[in-house]
Amino acid sequence: MTLYEQLADEIEAAVRRGVFAAGERIPSVRQASQQHGVSIKTVLHAYGLLESRGVVETRPQSGYFVRDAAVRARTAPGRATQTQVVAAEVDVSRLVLSTLRSIRSEDAMPLGSPYPDPSLFPWRRINQYANAIARRHASWNLIDDLPPGNPELIRQIARRYAENGIAIDPDEIIITVGATEAINLSLQAVAKPGDTVAVESPTYYAMLHAIERLGMRAIEVPTHPAHGIDIDVLAQIVGKQKIAACMVMPNFQNPLGFRMPDERKQQLVDLLAAHDIPAIENDVYQELYFGDTRPSTLKSFDTRGLVLHCASFSKSLTASYRIGWAMPGRYRAQVEKLKFLNTLTTPSVPQIAVADYLRQDGYDRHLRQVRKFYRQQARLMIAMVQRFFPAGTRTSSPQGGYVLWVELPPRVDSMRLYQAALARSITIGPGYMFSTRNDFSHFIRLNYSYPWNAQTEHALKTLGELAASMV
Amino acid sequence: MTLYEQLADEIEAAVRRGVFAAGERIPSVRQASQQHGVSIKTVLHAYGLLESRGVVETRPQSGYFVRDAAVRARTAPGRATQTQVVAAEVDVSRLVLSTLRSIRSEDAMPLGSPYPDPSLFPWRRINQYANAIARRHASWNLIDDLPPGNPELIRQIARRYAENGIAIDPDEIIITVGATEAINLSLQAVAKPGDTVAVESPTYYAMLHAIERLGMRAIEVPTHPAHGIDIDVLAQIVGKQKIAACMVMPNFQNPLGFRMPDERKQQLVDLLAAHDIPAIENDVYQELYFGDTRPSTLKSFDTRGLVLHCASFSKSLTASYRIGWAMPGRYRAQVEKLKFLNTLTTPSVPQIAVADYLRQDGYDRHLRQVRKFYRQQARLMIAMVQRFFPAGTRTSSPQGGYVLWVELPPRVDSMRLYQAALARSITIGPGYMFSTRNDFSHFIRLNYSYPWNAQTEHALKTLGELAASMV
Repeated sequence: MTLYEQLADEIEAAVRRGVFAAGERIPSVRQASQQHGVSIKTVLHAYGLLESRGVVETRPQSGYFVRDAAVRARTAPGRATQTQVVAAEVDVSRLVLSTLRSIRSEDAMPLGSPYPDPSLFPWRRINQYANAIARRHASWNLIDDLPPGNPELIRQIARRYAENGIAIDPDEIIITVGATEAINLSLQAVAKPGDTVAVESPTYYAMLHAIERLGMRAIEVPTHPAHGIDIDVLAQIVGKQKIAACMVMPNFQNPLGFRMPDERKQQLVDLLAAHDIPAIENDVYQELYFGDTRPSTLKSFDTRGLVLHCASFSKSLTASYRIGWAMPGRYRAQVEKLKFLNTLTTPSVPQIAVADYLRQDGYDRHLRQVRKFYRQQARLMIAMVQRFFPAGTRTSSPQGGYVLWVELPPRVDSMRLYQAALARSITIGPGYMFSTRNDFSHFIRLNYSYPWNAQTEHALKTLGELAASMV
Repeated sequence: MTLYEQLADEIEAAVRRGVFAAGERIPSVRQASQQHGVSIKTVLHAYGLLESRGVVETRPQSGYFVRDAAVRARTAPGRATQTQVVAAEVDVSRLVLSTLRSIRSEDAMPLGSPYPDPSLFPWRRINQYANAIARRHASWNLIDDLPPGNPELIRQIARRYAENGIAIDPDEIIITVGATEAINLSLQAVAKPGDTVAVESPTYYAMLHAIERLGMRAIEVPTHPAHGIDIDVLAQIVGKQKIAACMVMPNFQNPLGFRMPDERKQQLVDLLAAHDIPAIENDVYQELYFGDTRPSTLKSFDTRGLVLHCASFSKSLTASYRIGWAMPGRYRAQVEKLKFLNTLTTPSVPQIAVADYLRQDGYDRHLRQVRKFYRQQARLMIAMVQRFFPAGTRTSSPQGGYVLWVELPPRVDSMRLYQAALARSITIGPGYMFSTRNDFSHFIRLNYSYPWNAQTEHALKTLGELAASMV
C-alpha cells in the first residue's frame, strides 16, 4: 500500500469512528502534512482519494469537509480497504450451489435465499396469460422466437426503459434464459479464457460464476457500501495491467444494496472508455428501488457502445419463467450468435406470457407494492439485527432490492455460523460466496423479502445468539 | 492415402456401381493380389477395411461376399471417401442461423426446417398439464428444480429408458435447456479451447456449433450413409493425434438418417475406451424409429462411464418447452456444475408439465402415430425426389427421424439452389451447414414431417426444375 493510500485509509477510519462528524472540516493539507510527516503532494493525493471514495468533498476556498453520506455509511460494512488486488482463479460455485440446495428444504427459514419470496409474484396473473396463449395458438414453432427473441416482448422491454426516461435501441435487445445467460454471453463476447476481469469486492457471485465458467481470472476491486466500486483503485489497476472487462452492479448491488450516484456512474464509464474496456452491467434489481424514480444505468452514460447491459424479470415479476435480456452495445452481433450457440432459443411460451402481462396487466401497481414492502422490511430487519446480534455487528443501508449485508465481529466465521444455523433450520448467505478471497469471512447476507412473523423474529434471535457464542 | 485404402475404395466403388451384386463373391485375395499387382497382405488389409465398412462379409472357407446393405446403400449419398481429414476451426453458425430465420416466414414451404411439424405435437395436452400446475401450486420457487432438475421428471425419463430395456442410473440424469445445452456442457466438461474433436461427416451442425462456441477444432471423419462413422479411419486418427472427444449421432443421424448397427456401436465404444476418449452421443431422435423397437445407445455399451448421452423432448413431444437432458457418465459432477453456471436452472413449469404428461398421458400412443406417419412420409418424399429431380440425384434411406439427405448432380451448388428456392418461398437445408469443408456443396436436406399436399408436391417439382436448370 502506498503512503497516500495509508493516509486516506487512516482518515476514512477516523470518519467512520465519528472522530470527524458530517459537515465538519478535516485538517487542512498543510496541517495533515505536518501531523503525519508526509509531503504536501502525498496529502493532496490522499484527499483526492477520499473525495473519490465519497468520504469528503471540497468547498472552494474552504478546504475538505466530511460528507453526510460518509457518516451515514458508518453503519455500513463491507468496505474492503485492501488495495492489494491480486487476480485470482475462481471457484465459488460449489459453495453457492450447496448453499442454494440447503434453501430447498421447505422447512428452513430462507434468510440465505438470493430470491425474493415467490408468493409476492403475480404468478396467478402470469399463468393466466400463459394459459390464454395455449388456447389462442394452434401450436408454436420453436423457430418463431429465435434470437434475438419474441418481437413483442422486446418491444415491451424497450417501452419500460423509455417510460423511465432511459433511451435505448430496441434492436439492441436479446432475450436470454435469465440474467445468468445474459451475463455469461456478454462476458464471453468480450473476453477469452485466461483474461483478467475486474469485479466489485464483495461481488454478486453470479459474476464470479461467469468468470469461472470461462476459465478467466478475477481481480477484486474494493467497493464502498454507499457508492460502489473504487474508481481510483480501478484506475490504478487498468493503468498497470490488461483488464478485459469490468463487471459491476451499479444499482442495489448484491450484497451491499447501494445505488451508485450518477456522477460516479459517469466517471466509471469514462474511465473504462478511456482504456477501451467493456463494462458488463448487471441491473437485475432496476425495478426494486426505494426512492421515487428508477435509477439511471451505466448504459445511460455510454456513448461508445462499450456497456453490455444485462437484466431480467426473475427478481421483480417471476423467477420460474427465466426470462432475461442483454443490450450488448457494439457487441450485439457476437452476443446474439453466442445465444444461438448456447441454448438455441429461449422457450417461447414464457416469452409471450411475460409480453402479454406487461402489455395488459398491472406491472407498475405490483412493483409499487413490492417496493414499499421491501423498504419497510429492510428497516425491520436492520432493527432486529441491531437488537439481537452481538455488539460490533454492523449492517448495510440498502437503497433497493431485498438483501441485507451484515458484518459480524471479526471472530465469527460465517461458514461455522452457516452450519450451526442450518442445524436449526435457518439458512443464511455466508460471506465466502462473495469473493475469491477470505475478506468477508465474518459477513453474512440476509434476505428480508419474506413477510415478518414470529418465526422470522425467533430465527433472527437464534442467529444472534449463535453469533454471540462464537465471539 | 495408403495402397490398401485405395484398393478398398476401388472395390467399394465397384460394388456401388453394381459391378458386384448383393451376395456375390468378390475376387479372392490371391486373384486381387495378381489383378492389382499388390501384396497378399495389402489385399487382406483392404478386405478387412471393406468388412468394417459393412461392404462385404466373410464366410468361413468361402471368401468375401457383398452384403445386402452395401447394395441397398447404393441409392444413399453422402459417403465421404476422403480420408485426408484436417482439423478445422469452425464457423457454420452464421449460415445456420440465417437459414433458420428464413424458415420463420409463415408463407415459406419449410422443407429446410430442422424441426418436426409442430402441429403433430400433443401441445394441447401438455399445455393442459402446464395450466393444471398453475392452479395446483400457490407459487414456485426457482430453487425447487435446481440442477440436476425436477425429481419427478428425472424419474419419468429413467422409466422410459428402463421400459425400452436400456439400463441407466436415474442419478446420472441432468435436465438442460434442450439437447443444445446438454451437448454444449458435455463437450465443455471433457475438452478445452484449442482441443481437437472428431465428428461425423456430414455431421449435425449442432455438433459444429458446440465446437465453435468453445473455440475448439473439428476433425471430420467419413461417415457411411447406412452404418455410420468410419471406425477404421477414426482408429487411424486417434492412433496418430490427440483427440479430446468424439461427437456422434448413432441413431437416425441428421442428415443421413442411418441407424448404426449394434456391433458397430460396440466397436466404436471399444475403440474410444481403448484411447480414453469420451464419446458425446446425441440421441435426440431415439423415439422416432421406423423399426419395431427403440434402438440401442452407445451408452448401453459403455462400461467405463466415457459416454456422455444427450437427448431431449424437442423432436418427439414439444419443441417450445426446451427440455433436454444429459447422462454424462463419469463427468456427471462437471456437467452439473457447468449447467448451474450456464443457465442456473431449467424453467420449472415446463419440467413439471412434461413430467405430468409422461406420467399420465398417452406419450406412447402419440409416438406410435408419428413413427408410422414419418415412415410413410419418408417413402413419399423419396418417390417425389426421384420423380421430379434431375438424373443422377440420389437420396438417403432414413431408418427414423424426419429428414432426407439428397445428393444432386455435382454441378448443382446448394447455396445457389437455396437462394433460388427462397425466392419462390421454399426453404431447404444447404449441404454447407453440415461440414466445415465443402464436401457437401451439392447436397441438400429436406424435412418430410409436414403433411403431404398439393403445395408440397408443387414445391418439390419447383426444386427439381431449379436443380435441373443448374446442371
